[in-house]
Amino acid sequence: MKLVSFEKEGEVRVGIVQGELVVDIHVVSGRSLPKDLLSIIDLGDEGLKRMRELGTFTVENEGVYSLREVALKSPIQRPVSIRDFYAFEEHVKTARKRRGLDVVPEWYDIPVFYFTNHLAVKGPLDSIEIPTGCEWLDYELEIACVIGKKGRNISRDKAEDHIYGYVVMNDWSARDIQKHEMKVGLGPAKGKDFATSIGPYLVTKDELEVYRNGDRFDLSMTAKVNGKLLSEGNYWDIHYTFLDMIERASKDVTLYPGEIIGSGTVGTGCILELGPETHPWLKPGDVVELEITGLGVLQNTIAMRREEEEHVLSSTGEHTS
Amino acid sequence: MKLVSFEKEGEVRVGIVQGELVVDIHVVSGRSLPKDLLSIIDLGDEGLKRMRELGTFTVENEGVYSLREVALKSPIQRPVSIRDFYAFEEHVKTARKRRGLDVVPEWYDIPVFYFTNHLAVKGPLDSIEIPTGCEWLDYELEIACVIGKKGRNISRDKAEDHIYGYVVMNDWSARDIQKHEMKVGLGPAKGKDFATSIGPYLVTKDELEVYRNGDRFDLSMTAKVNGKLLSEGNYWDIHYTFLDMIERASKDVTLYPGEIIGSGTVGTGCILELGPETHPWLKPGDVVELEITGLGVLQNTIAMRREEEEHVLSSTGEHTS
Repeated sequence: MKLVSFEKEGEVRVGIVQGELVVDIHVVSGRSLPKDLLSIIDLGDEGLKRMRELGTFTVENEGVYSLREVALKSPIQRPVSIRDFYAFEEHVKTARKRRGLDVVPEWYDIPVFYFTNHLAVKGPLDSIEIPTGCEWLDYELEIACVIGKKGRNISRDKAEDHIYGYVVMNDWSARDIQKHEMKVGLGPAKGKDFATSIGPYLVTKDELEVYRNGDRFDLSMTAKVNGKLLSEGNYWDIHYTFLDMIERASKDVTLYPGEIIGSGTVGTGCILELGPETHPWLKPGDVVELEITGLGVLQNTIAMRREEEEHVLSSTGEHTS
Repeated sequence: MKLVSFEKEGEVRVGIVQGELVVDIHVVSGRSLPKDLLSIIDLGDEGLKRMRELGTFTVENEGVYSLREVALKSPIQRPVSIRDFYAFEEHVKTARKRRGLDVVPEWYDIPVFYFTNHLAVKGPLDSIEIPTGCEWLDYELEIACVIGKKGRNISRDKAEDHIYGYVVMNDWSARDIQKHEMKVGLGPAKGKDFATSIGPYLVTKDELEVYRNGDRFDLSMTAKVNGKLLSEGNYWDIHYTFLDMIERASKDVTLYPGEIIGSGTVGTGCILELGPETHPWLKPGDVVELEITGLGVLQNTIAMRREEEEHVLSSTGEHTS
């Protein structure tokens, strides 16, 4: 199933994509299934079973819309967390070579990650504002998995059971800010915290089985800027699979449904790697399209930073975005 | 006010400490105030006003208990996020000197932070399990602030308005794991993600006004291991105040109520800095007490890692811890 969050009549709803239609899960289940994707993920296998039993619909049914008439949002409005790994060898090699560095031997010992800002998640239609002072804005072409089942000390041979599905992910990067802050030896943080986009769908893991060979999938990954193909890779080439990443992430730590694990950038999957001589850093108006076999196209447009004062967004605090 | 979360009759509740008593906010407000601290923080100034109007109680009142007969939990059960800064110069100088390094000039340009695992928060009575393979377990003596009001691009002169209160924080660190993973150039992640303890109280910011001088507070910070004083510092010495940290964190990023911002370790505030010749790394049974003027004592005991298989903790997923 391809699961989406979409806005209709001012409300964010969760739907299943059926061809050119989107089916409001809450409505067609007779209001018995939840209104947000995180709550559906929390239902685990039972939720998947109940969604599969809903059947197929036509646009005449209540709660069914043409995909073109709804606004897709980030499939998960607020992920429980985001860990981003660094699991493609080619990216690590090339990115380090550009700084005159070799891959450190420790990279081959363990899959390494950092936590990024799970509160700045963008969807397929959101524009990406260039952060203050950033002149080197970059995209990063990644695949991410969404955790579906709570667990701790999950060994790689049991990790598959904890995956709910997959999304295309763009780990937007302000390379100049990142370079500056990382001299201090922590992070990245401000170089990455302004936006991570995911979508357009959360694709349940069963849909990728046709591309499987062993513990890997044959998934083409491409990035285009303004229609020009810049990045071309394949999930197949990953050094550490999601099974390895889950084993690492869950060591002595409980993983919860709704946590997101990013792969890190596929080889050639960002301007930093291609070199700004191949393509300039991103500028307002640029359209970035990331595509992965089976997972769709995640498109975002770069925008100027809004200049207004945003000191207080609401008079009382609220932690729901 | 000193706000706590506590367990009574198998349920986690939120209370105000009044002398030797703890007052269940939900119960004494006639069930009109929420049952968890994050929801109370979301009420902002209105919630603070309503809590102040509750008055004082005796142990005869319904929902009022002796502090000694309740089990204190982490005041916020699941923070919205945790950013940890690196804001005390002495800690940075000493920790780097031990690795034969100077403080990089960039440290003086900007306050730098990383995101840590907000899902592994421990309270004052929780034991801290030594992670797998860790032989160099350390504490870190920190003060943290809790965000109370949503905002974006908050300048330092307006940042005070976004602080709800303060907590003692222990950023537990597996130094050997941290050293290994950070060679790859990201993080820290696994070196820190297994536990961060906060508490015993969330102290609302008005209580620290008596210690204020300008934009700083005169707050003694100490750490003891098994009763022996090891670390002694003062918030006064911080290079970047919480106002600076909030300005940095909120640049092009929305901050939400319930997010936590840690100061980084105060000078002398960890074994790494003191040197293992001064005190050995922590071992099972060690009792670590962090104390900060006005914020109380945060005490945790080190434990062996539980050995049981924890692959599936529950049959269906649930994202609420």
